[in-house]
Amino acid sequence: MSKIFVDACFGKETPYTPVWMMRQAGRYLPEYMKVRAEAGNFLNLCHDPKKACEVTLQPVDIVGVDAAILFSDILVIPDEMGMDLEFIKGEGPKFNDPLENEADLDRLIGGEEAASKLTYVYDTIKLIKEQLADDKALIGFTGAPWTLATYMIEGQGTKTYNICKKMMYSNPELLHKILAKVTEVVKLYMEKQIEAGIDVVQIFDSWAAAIEPSKYDEFSWKYMVEIADYLKEKHPEVPIIMFPKGIPAFLDNVYGNFDVFGVDWSTPMALAKEKLGDKYVLQGNMEPCRLYSKEATTASVEDIQKTMGTSRHIFNLGHGILPDVPVENAKHFVSECQRVSKKS
Amino acid sequence: MSKIFVDACFGKETPYTPVWMMRQAGRYLPEYMKVRAEAGNFLNLCHDPKKACEVTLQPVDIVGVDAAILFSDILVIPDEMGMDLEFIKGEGPKFNDPLENEADLDRLIGGEEAASKLTYVYDTIKLIKEQLADDKALIGFTGAPWTLATYMIEGQGTKTYNICKKMMYSNPELLHKILAKVTEVVKLYMEKQIEAGIDVVQIFDSWAAAIEPSKYDEFSWKYMVEIADYLKEKHPEVPIIMFPKGIPAFLDNVYGNFDVFGVDWSTPMALAKEKLGDKYVLQGNMEPCRLYSKEATTASVEDIQKTMGTSRHIFNLGHGILPDVPVENAKHFVSECQRVSKKS
Repeated sequence: MSKIFVDACFGKETPYTPVWMMRQAGRYLPEYMKVRAEAGNFLNLCHDPKKACEVTLQPVDIVGVDAAILFSDILVIPDEMGMDLEFIKGEGPKFNDPLENEADLDRLIGGEEAASKLTYVYDTIKLIKEQLADDKALIGFTGAPWTLATYMIEGQGTKTYNICKKMMYSNPELLHKILAKVTEVVKLYMEKQIEAGIDVVQIFDSWAAAIEPSKYDEFSWKYMVEIADYLKEKHPEVPIIMFPKGIPAFLDNVYGNFDVFGVDWSTPMALAKEKLGDKYVLQGNMEPCRLYSKEATTASVEDIQKTMGTSRHIFNLGHGILPDVPVENAKHFVSECQRVSKKS
Repeated sequence: MSKIFVDACFGKETPYTPVWMMRQAGRYLPEYMKVRAEAGNFLNLCHDPKKACEVTLQPVDIVGVDAAILFSDILVIPDEMGMDLEFIKGEGPKFNDPLENEADLDRLIGGEEAASKLTYVYDTIKLIKEQLADDKALIGFTGAPWTLATYMIEGQGTKTYNICKKMMYSNPELLHKILAKVTEVVKLYMEKQIEAGIDVVQIFDSWAAAIEPSKYDEFSWKYMVEIADYLKEKHPEVPIIMFPKGIPAFLDNVYGNFDVFGVDWSTPMALAKEKLGDKYVLQGNMEPCRLYSKEATTASVEDIQKTMGTSRHIFNLGHGILPDVPVENAKHFVSECQRVSKKS
C-alpha cells in the first residue's frame, strides 16, 4: 500500500499535505505519562521494545498524524559506544566520563560492534511495524554527529558549548576524530533501522545553531551528508529528512543527496522555499508555542499553506511540541493541516 | 576632544576601526573578580557607584578597548519598578513575583518615578566620566523591553519561553501593556543616562531569537525603535547601537532611526553588510569562542576586516566574552583589530 507520507517526501502528488509533530510521542499525552511512569525512567522506556512501541503508536491513534516516529533517544549511540549515560531528574542527560583527549575516544567501541548493541531499537521497530496501519509511515532517526559530540564532550547540555568550541578552535583534529567515529556508528545504526523496517530517516542536528555559519559545513553538515550518501547508495527507496535547527544564514550553502529539508521556526518558510524549494521537499515549520492557542495555530497553518501550496511540503512544527500543550490543540493543528491542504 | 568611537558610530573617517567587547568588564579579568568578591554579590556591585566605576574602567586599562561600557545589569529596571529581584548563585537572576495578569502589572511603578530610583546608575556614570580618558567613549545601555519582559513574566531565565509565548499567542494585549510600561521607563532611564554623561547608547535584545521572525517587529523591534526615536529627538548627538541577538532572518525588515546595527555571530558580516551596510554602521561580530585560540582570533579578525574594509564598522565580539578566556587572548583580539584596520 502506498504511504502518503513517503510519497510526499519524494515530491509526488498526494491527496493532502501530510503532517507529524516533532516530540509527538511525548509528555503532553496523558497516555504517554502513564507508560513512562510504569517504565520507571526515561532510559528504561527506550530499552523496552514493548513500551517504546506503545508510545510510538499513541499519537497516530490519538492525534491523527500521518507518520509515527520511533520512540528512542539520540544518546543511545554514545551510551552503547561505552559512555556512562544517566538521565538526572530535572537536569537532563549526563555523561559521567566526557571525552577530553584521544585516549578517551580510543576507549569507546565503534562501527559494527557499537551498532550491533542497539538491538532493543531494532526490536522496537519490528514490533511497531507489526501494529502500524499500512498507510502510515514509520520515521526512524538519529542525532547528527555534531549534536551527539556536544554531549560526549561537554558531558551534559550546555548554554555556551564552550568546551566543544575550545576544541573546535584549538584542537580541531581531535574534534574531527570524534565526529568521524560517531559518523561510522550512525551509518550502520541507520542502515540497521532501515533493515528492521523504518520507512523514512530523519537526522536531527538539534545544536546546529551552536556553530558559526562559516564553520557549519566543516564540523557538522558534511558528516550528515556522508551519512545520507551511505544510506542512499544502499537504500534509495528510503527518503531522508535533514533537520538542522536554527541555521537561516546557512541556507545558501545547503547541498547533498537527501530528499527533505526540515525547516525550523526561526527560518521563514518563504525564505526556505526561495533558497531550497526547487531542490528539496520542505518540512515545517509552525512555532510550537502557537499550539497554546487554536486561533494562532489556524492562522499559522493557513500562512504556511499559502506559502507552500499543496505540493513539495510536509507539515510539522518548527521544533518539538512542549509538555504543557493541551491535547485538543495538537489535534486541532493536525486536522487544520489536513483541512487546508486537501485537494477536493 | 574627538572620540574615535563616537566618530565611527556616525560613519565618520577614523584612523583605525575601534573595538570593544560585550561583557568586557567581567569574570575573565582577575581584577574584576577581586572587586566583585569585595562587593559580596552581583547586585551589590551594581548598586555601588565606586566599585561599578572601577570595574567599568578595568578593560580600558588592561585590554586596551576604545570604549568603556557602564557596569550594570539590565534587570535593575524591573527591580526598581517594584519587582523582587534576587541573584541566586549558580542559577542566575530570579523574580519571586512574576507578572501573571494586569493587576500584577498595575502594582508596578512606572515612568519618571521608576527611572528616578536608578540614581546609583547615574552616579556611577558621573564617576566614570571623571576618570575615563577624554579620547575613550562611555557606552550606556539597557535591555530591550522584550528581553526585560521575558524575565518579568517567566520569573527567571528560560529555555523555552513558554510562559511569555503562551501570553503572546493567547493574550497579546497584556503582553503589549507590559512592553509599553517597560518602554516608558527605558526611555526616561536612557535619557537620564545621557544627562549623566554617557556618549553612546546600546540597546541589547538578548532574547530576540525567541520570537518567530513574523512576530519580531510587533513584540520587540517596534518598541526598540520607539525608544530610539525618543532619544534621537532629545539628543541627536548621542549615537544609538541596536543589538538584537540571533535574527539573521529578520535583516530584510530592519528599520528605524538609529546609527549602528550590532551583528551577532550567527549572522555573517557579509550578509549584514549586503542587507544593512548602506543604512547603518555595523558592529561585530567575532564568535566569542575563537578567543580560546590566538590563531582562530587572528583569522576571524582578518576575515571581518576584509569584508568590512576600514569604514562604517566597529569591531566587537558577536556575543559576550566567556569567563574562562585567557586575558592575553582578549588583548590579542583588541590589538589585532587595531592592527588590521590601521590607516598608515
